[in-house]
Amino acid sequence: MNNNNNETKKKVVLAYSGGLDTTVIIHWLIQNYNYEVIAVCVDVGQGKELDGLEERALSSGASKLYIENVVEDFVDDYVIPTVKSGAVYEGKYLLGTSMARPIISQKLVEIALKEGAEAICHGATGKGNDQVRFELTIKALAPHLKIIAPWRIWDIQSREDALDYCAEHGIEAPMKKEDSYSRDRNLWHLSHEGLDLELPENEPDYDNLLQMTVTPEKAPDEPTYIEIEFDKGTPVKLNGEEMNCTNILTKLNEIGGKNGIGLIDIVENRIVGMKSRGVYETPGGAILYYAHKELEYLCLDKQTLAYKDTLSIKFAELVYSGEWFTPLREALSAFVDSTQETVTGKVKLKLYKGNIISAGSSSPYSLYNESIASFTTGELYNHKDAEGFINLFGLPLKVRAMMFNNINSNK
Amino acid sequence: MNNNNNETKKKVVLAYSGGLDTTVIIHWLIQNYNYEVIAVCVDVGQGKELDGLEERALSSGASKLYIENVVEDFVDDYVIPTVKSGAVYEGKYLLGTSMARPIISQKLVEIALKEGAEAICHGATGKGNDQVRFELTIKALAPHLKIIAPWRIWDIQSREDALDYCAEHGIEAPMKKEDSYSRDRNLWHLSHEGLDLELPENEPDYDNLLQMTVTPEKAPDEPTYIEIEFDKGTPVKLNGEEMNCTNILTKLNEIGGKNGIGLIDIVENRIVGMKSRGVYETPGGAILYYAHKELEYLCLDKQTLAYKDTLSIKFAELVYSGEWFTPLREALSAFVDSTQETVTGKVKLKLYKGNIISAGSSSPYSLYNESIASFTTGELYNHKDAEGFINLFGLPLKVRAMMFNNINSNK
Amino acid sequence: MNNNNNETKKKVVLAYSGGLDTTVIIHWLIQNYNYEVIAVCVDVGQGKELDGLEERALSSGASKLYIENVVEDFVDDYVIPTVKSGAVYEGKYLLGTSMARPIISQKLVEIALKEGAEAICHGATGKGNDQVRFELTIKALAPHLKIIAPWRIWDIQSREDALDYCAEHGIEAPMKKEDSYSRDRNLWHLSHEGLDLELPENEPDYDNLLQMTVTPEKAPDEPTYIEIEFDKGTPVKLNGEEMNCTNILTKLNEIGGKNGIGLIDIVENRIVGMKSRGVYETPGGAILYYAHKELEYLCLDKQTLAYKDTLSIKFAELVYSGEWFTPLREALSAFVDSTQETVTGKVKLKLYKGNIISAGSSSPYSLYNESIASFTTGELYNHKDAEGFINLFGLPLKVRAMMFNNINSNK
Amino acid sequence: MNNNNNETKKKVVLAYSGGLDTTVIIHWLIQNYNYEVIAVCVDVGQGKELDGLEERALSSGASKLYIENVVEDFVDDYVIPTVKSGAVYEGKYLLGTSMARPIISQKLVEIALKEGAEAICHGATGKGNDQVRFELTIKALAPHLKIIAPWRIWDIQSREDALDYCAEHGIEAPMKKEDSYSRDRNLWHLSHEGLDLELPENEPDYDNLLQMTVTPEKAPDEPTYIEIEFDKGTPVKLNGEEMNCTNILTKLNEIGGKNGIGLIDIVENRIVGMKSRGVYETPGGAILYYAHKELEYLCLDKQTLAYKDTLSIKFAELVYSGEWFTPLREALSAFVDSTQETVTGKVKLKLYKGNIISAGSSSPYSLYNESIASFTTGELYNHKDAEGFINLFGLPLKVRAMMFNNINSNK
Repeated sequence: MNNNNNETKKKVVLAYSGGLDTTVIIHWLIQNYNYEVIAVCVDVGQGKELDGLEERALSSGASKLYIENVVEDFVDDYVIPTVKSGAVYEGKYLLGTSMARPIISQKLVEIALKEGAEAICHGATGKGNDQVRFELTIKALAPHLKIIAPWRIWDIQSREDALDYCAEHGIEAPMKKEDSYSRDRNLWHLSHEGLDLELPENEPDYDNLLQMTVTPEKAPDEPTYIEIEFDKGTPVKLNGEEMNCTNILTKLNEIGGKNGIGLIDIVENRIVGMKSRGVYETPGGAILYYAHKELEYLCLDKQTLAYKDTLSIKFAELVYSGEWFTPLREALSAFVDSTQETVTGKVKLKLYKGNIISAGSSSPYSLYNESIASFTTGELYNHKDAEGFINLFGLPLKVRAMMFNNINSNK
Repeated sequence: MNNNNNETKKKVVLAYSGGLDTTVIIHWLIQNYNYEVIAVCVDVGQGKELDGLEERALSSGASKLYIENVVEDFVDDYVIPTVKSGAVYEGKYLLGTSMARPIISQKLVEIALKEGAEAICHGATGKGNDQVRFELTIKALAPHLKIIAPWRIWDIQSREDALDYCAEHGIEAPMKKEDSYSRDRNLWHLSHEGLDLELPENEPDYDNLLQMTVTPEKAPDEPTYIEIEFDKGTPVKLNGEEMNCTNILTKLNEIGGKNGIGLIDIVENRIVGMKSRGVYETPGGAILYYAHKELEYLCLDKQTLAYKDTLSIKFAELVYSGEWFTPLREALSAFVDSTQETVTGKVKLKLYKGNIISAGSSSPYSLYNESIASFTTGELYNHKDAEGFINLFGLPLKVRAMMFNNINSNK
Repeated sequence: MNNNNNETKKKVVLAYSGGLDTTVIIHWLIQNYNYEVIAVCVDVGQGKELDGLEERALSSGASKLYIENVVEDFVDDYVIPTVKSGAVYEGKYLLGTSMARPIISQKLVEIALKEGAEAICHGATGKGNDQVRFELTIKALAPHLKIIAPWRIWDIQSREDALDYCAEHGIEAPMKKEDSYSRDRNLWHLSHEGLDLELPENEPDYDNLLQMTVTPEKAPDEPTYIEIEFDKGTPVKLNGEEMNCTNILTKLNEIGGKNGIGLIDIVENRIVGMKSRGVYETPGGAILYYAHKELEYLCLDKQTLAYKDTLSIKFAELVYSGEWFTPLREALSAFVDSTQETVTGKVKLKLYKGNIISAGSSSPYSLYNESIASFTTGELYNHKDAEGFINLFGLPLKVRAMMFNNINSNK
Repeated sequence: MNNNNNETKKKVVLAYSGGLDTTVIIHWLIQNYNYEVIAVCVDVGQGKELDGLEERALSSGASKLYIENVVEDFVDDYVIPTVKSGAVYEGKYLLGTSMARPIISQKLVEIALKEGAEAICHGATGKGNDQVRFELTIKALAPHLKIIAPWRIWDIQSREDALDYCAEHGIEAPMKKEDSYSRDRNLWHLSHEGLDLELPENEPDYDNLLQMTVTPEKAPDEPTYIEIEFDKGTPVKLNGEEMNCTNILTKLNEIGGKNGIGLIDIVENRIVGMKSRGVYETPGGAILYYAHKELEYLCLDKQTLAYKDTLSIKFAELVYSGEWFTPLREALSAFVDSTQETVTGKVKLKLYKGNIISAGSSSPYSLYNESIASFTTGELYNHKDAEGFINLFGLPLKVRAMMFNNINSNK
C-alpha cells in the first residue's frame, strides 16, 4: 500500500498506538482523504513493547513512524508542576491521563509543522475527555492545523465494527484481546474504565483489574519506610540517594505498587458533561503528592496554604479540561512556583498495606517553632497578647450581638 | 467552703472538668474575685466517668455543679452540618475539638444567663485555639458577660505550679497522672498534643498514644464491609438499620476504631498565629466524611461539586476559628443545605487495616447515566456534538494563537 | 394559511416578537416541519406596542398568539435576587438580557406543555448568548422537548436574505427599518450591539444610540436626591413612598435616565468563546445596585462582605451563561438570602450628570458603632488590645523572618 | 536638648511628620526611655513643605532628621503592582494609605539597621489600620526590633491632651490648626476621616473637604479626552508622550482633580474589627484603575479575567491589612505579572464632571476578533458548532431534569 506519489499528497500526522483502532484509522485516512499518513507514537512511559511498531505502522499503510520518548519531559514539565500545585481533580483523581495529553499533542504539532502536514488525527472517542485535551492543545499551538477525529465521523461504533472493517478491507488486525477495560497508561498512572465499572454500585474486581499495584490485602505484612527530599517543591532524593524525578517516580511506583498504595475509584464529571466511573492506579504519584503536602505543612504559612488549597481546585480543573496551554494555567503556575521557594526538606513516610503514614518531616525553612508551640511560655509569645487578639478578632461579633440586644430591648 | 452570703456575691460560671486545672481555678476565682463559682460540665461524649464529679466540684468550693449532656445536640447541630459541608481544616483535620467548643460555650452562656452570672471562666491556655473559640461564642451570644481566662492572668505556668498551688492552699489535688499528652475527647474524636509530638520530625509513638483506634498493623486481617444510608446528606441507617446520628457515629467509632481508621498526624496553623503538631483519632468521623462525599460524587453536578469544594475550605476556617455563630457560617450552611436536597442514597465501604475503600454506591438522585457514560452511542448523546463543543470551548485559545501568529509574522 | 387539519399536526411553540425574523420563522416552520405554530410573546417590559400583534402573528401563519405579561415576576423573581447577590458580569454588565431569558423560556415551556407541543423554536442567532440561555432553560425544565434554532439551520444569513425570503414566499414583511443596532430591551435595560460598535477603538455615538437615558452632558445642571428603603435586601420604598419593586424600578429608570445614569460600554466575553462589544443602558438598575451595596456596607460584617464579593462573581457567571435553573445558582441564592436578613434601612443618593453619589445611609441593623469608630477611646474598645492583636496577627511574619535570619547567619 | 552622651544611649527611629503628635512623641521618648531619637520623614508625595522640618525636629529633641524621598519607588514598586492586580478594597477603596505604609516602614527599618537602633516608634493610634501596617512590615523585615506605639501606652487621648503636654513640658507646639478631619495624603490619594463623617447618615460636606479634586458640579462643562498607553500593564505614555509612572500619576491627578474624578465615600471594615467611614480623593488613581481594566477587557481571556477578579479581592485584603511583605502577596503578584504579559495598548477616556467614560481602546494583543464577533458568519466560526456546544454544556441539566421526571413518574 506504499504510495508512489506521496510527495504530491497532503500529509496527516496520526497519534499512533499500534492497536486495532489506529491501524484501522491509517487505512481509513488513506481511503477517505488520500492522505500520506505519518504515524507518531509518543512514549510517556506506557511500558509497552515498542519493538516491531514501525513495521506494523508501515505495513498498515503509514509512510513513516516517529517514536518520541518524552518520559523525562513529561515528568519534569507536566507532572512535577502539577504535583507542586497540589491539583487533585474533584478531590480524588491525580490527573494521570490529563497531564499526558498536552505533551503528546505538543509532539504531534511539532512533527506536523516539521513535516508540513495539514492535519492531525487522533483516535479518541466522541464521549471522552481526551478529544478535548488533544484538540485544545492543537488549537493553542497551531491554530491553522485541521483536526480529524474519526470516532466522531465514521460509522464504526465498537471493537466488532473495527474488526469487520479490517476483514472487509483485508487489513491484518492486531492480535485480538478478550473484551476488556478501556485503559490508559503512562509513567504516572494506569486508568481503567468500562465493563462492570459502568455500574457505580459495583465494587471493582480489583484482582482482575490491577497491574501497577496490589490490593492492600496482598501487600506485605511489614511496613516500608521511605524518605523523600524536596528542593523548592521538586523531589531530588529518595532514601538519601540523589535521582532525577523520573527515576524517583519509577522507584516510587515500584515501592508503592508493592504496598498497595494509590488505588482510586471515582465517579467523576467529564468535560463533556457526563459523569463516568474510573479506577486509577497511581502508586508513586499518590506518595509524591502526600510527601509534598507534608512538607508544605511545615514550610507554608497559613494564608498561603489556604489560598493555595483553593487555587489547586482551579488548577486541577484546567489540567483535567486540557487547558494546559492557557494564560490562566501559566499564571497559576507562576503563583505556585512563588510559593515553592521554601518548600525544601525531608519527609519520612511509612507505607503499609495501602496506607501512607507520616513518619516525621523536617525543613531548614520550617515555620514550626518549637519554643512558641510548646505549652510553656517563651520569650516570643506573650499569653497576654491573646486577650487583645481575641478582643479585636471578636469585636465584630460583639458589636453585632449588642446591636441585636439593643433592637430586642427596644421592641 | 460553702459560703453563707452567697446571695450577695457575684457569680461566675466555670467550664469545669474535674481535673487539676479547673480545681485550682475554683479556688483562685474565690480568692481573687470573691465570686460564687457555678461549675458546669458539658458532656459532649468525653467518655469520662461523671460519677462523683458533683462532690468533687462542691468540695473544691463550687456552689453548684451543672452536668449538661448535649451529645445528641452536638452531633445533630454541629457535627452533621459540618460533615455535610465537607469542611476539613487544612486538608486533614476533621475539626473535632473545634465543633465542640461552640456548643459548650452556648451551654455556659445559657446557664450564666439563668443564674444571673456576670462572668464566664474557662481553663483554656493563652497559646491555644480553644480560648478563641470559647470567647468568640460568648461574645456572639452574650456580649455583656465578662470573660475570665486564668491561664492568661495568673503565674501558674505548668502542672507543677498547679500542684504547688494546691499544696500551698490545702487543696486536695485530683489524682496525679504521669506527665502526659494534652488531650481533648468528645464523641467525634480524640486529640493528642505535646511531649514527643512537639518535634515534627518525630514519628508518633502510636502504640502509647491511641485510645479510640488501633494502628492499621493491629487491625483484623479480614475486611469489614459496611453500608451507610443518607437522607439529604444526613446519615439515617447503618447496615440497613435505622438509627439516629449519635448512634450511627457511636457504632462507626467502634467499627472504625477496630479497623485502624481515622488516624491523622498534622502540623497545623493555629488561630493565634503559630504552627502546632497534633495527632487525631477520628474513626467514625473519617468514615462519615468519606461516605458522604462518595454519595455527593453521584448526586451533585460538576459545578456544584467544584464550588462546594472551594466553599468547604472557608467553612473549615470558620469552624476551626470559633466563628460558628457568625453570619458567614450561617450563610455557608444555607448554601450547603441547598446542595444536600438530593444527597440521598447508599454507600458501601470496605474497611481494612486503616483503609476506607469504596465498594459501590447508589442513589435515586444519581446523575450518573449509564447509557450516556458507556462507550456505545445512545440516543441521549450525539458524538458529533463534541466537535461543536470543542470548537467553541477552544475558540479563545485558537483566537489567541492566531493573534500571536499574526504578530510574529509581522515582525 | 389557516390549516384545517391542525389537530393532527404536531405543534411547535415559537418565541415571537412580531419582527421580520420571527415572521419568516413561522413560514419556515410550517414549510419545513409542517408544524402548527403557536406564537408566544413574553412581555418583560420591552416597552413595545403589542396592539395588532395577534393579527400579525395569525396572518403570518401562526394558529394562535399568547401574550404573557410577566414583568412583575421578572422583577421579583429574577431581577431582585440578582441585585441582592451583587452579581455584575465581568465587573460591568448588569445582566439585563441574561436575567430575562430564563423567565421567557420558562413561559415558553409552560405553554409548550399545556399545548402538548413537541418543540420550542427561538430566533436567537448561532453566535450569541441567547441561544444558550434559551436552550439551557428548556433542557432544565422540559428535557424531552425538541429545540429548533433556525439561525443555526437555514441559509438566511442577514436581513437582506430574510427580506428576499419574504418576497419569494409572498410574505408581507414587517415595516423596514433602516439598518440598525441589534437591541434587546426589557424593564431593566436596553442593549446595543453591532455597526460601529464592532470596532472597540470606536467611541460610541451616544447621541444616536441612547433611548432610556441621556448622556451626562444633557442631564440637568441640578442634582436630584432620592431615598430608597430596603427590607431584607428588597427595595420597598422610594422617596418615602411604599411601592412594589416593579414600580420602584420603573420610577428609577425615569429618574436615572433623566440624569444620565447607567451607561455601560464593555468588551465582554460571550458564553460561546468570543469577545463582543456592547453598550448598555441600565439607569434604574445601576441605582438599585449602588443603593443596595451602600446598605450592605453598613449591615454586613467584613467576612460576609468579602465572601459575598467573591461569590457574586460566580453568581454573575451563572446568570450570564443561562444557568439560572441549576442547583448551584439555587445554592448561591440560599447563601445570598441568608446574608440579607439584616439588609434593611435607607440609602440617600444624589444623582448628578451620570454620577451616583452617596448622600448618607442608615439602618437599624447597622454594624457601624460610632463610639467604637471615633478617635476617642470608649468602653468598648481598649487601645491596648491592639498590641496583642498585632503581635499574634504578625506572629507568622515574625517567625518567618527569624527563620530566614537564622539561615542567613548560619551561612 | 542635644545630648552629649548620645553615643552611649540606645537609639529609636521615629516616623516623624513635624506635626503636634510626633513633636510630643520625641519628648516623651526621651523622658520615658532615655533614647536618642532619630527622626525620619519618608516623603511619599504628601505635598507638604519640608523646609524647616530638620530645624523643627532637632529643636524638639531629635538628634537627627532623615528626609527620604521615595515617591518614585512608592509608585513603581507599590502602586503599579497594585493597579495591575486590580485590587480594590471592599469594592471601593483604592488603598492609598495602605500602599504607602509598607514603603515607609521599610525605610524606617533600613535606617534603624544602619543606625543600630533598638526600636522603631510610630504615631499611629490604637484604633486604626496604620499601626497594624507599620508593625507587620517591621516584624517581617526586622523581627528583632522593638516597636513603640505611644498612643497605645500614654495617657494622651486627644489633641487637647497633647497641647497640655506641650505646655507642661515647655515644648513649642507646632502651629495650631482648627479642629479638623484626620487626613492622610500621598501622591496617590488624600483621605478624610472624623468630625461629621463619623455619622454614616451624613452627606459629606465636600466643599469644605476636598483638596485634590473639585466636586462634579464645579468641574468644567466641557469634557477632557485623554489617552493612556500601557506596556505589560504599566502605564508608559500619557496623551502620546512618554513619561515615567510618577509623572503620569502626577499629571492624571491634575487632570482628574479638575474634572471631579475619584471621589469615594465608604463605610469600610478596618483590620481591627470595627467599621469606619472615610472619604477619599484619588483622581489620578481612579483613572489609572479604570484605564488598566479597559485594556484587560481586550487582552485577557474570559477565564483569566474571572479568576483575576476573584484574586483581586484577596490582593486588596492583604494590602489593606499591611501584609505586603508576605509570601501570599508575593505569590499573588507572580500570578498578576504573568497575566500582564499582553496587557499592552492604548485606552482613550473621556472625563466629564466626575465620569470616566470609555472612548475606545486598542491593543496589538487584543483577543477581540471582529470577524468572529460580527453578525455575519465567517470562516472562523461555524454557527452549527453552537448546537453541539449547547448540547454538551446543557447535558448535565438535561440528565438532572430527566432524573427528576423519572422519579416523579414513578411516584
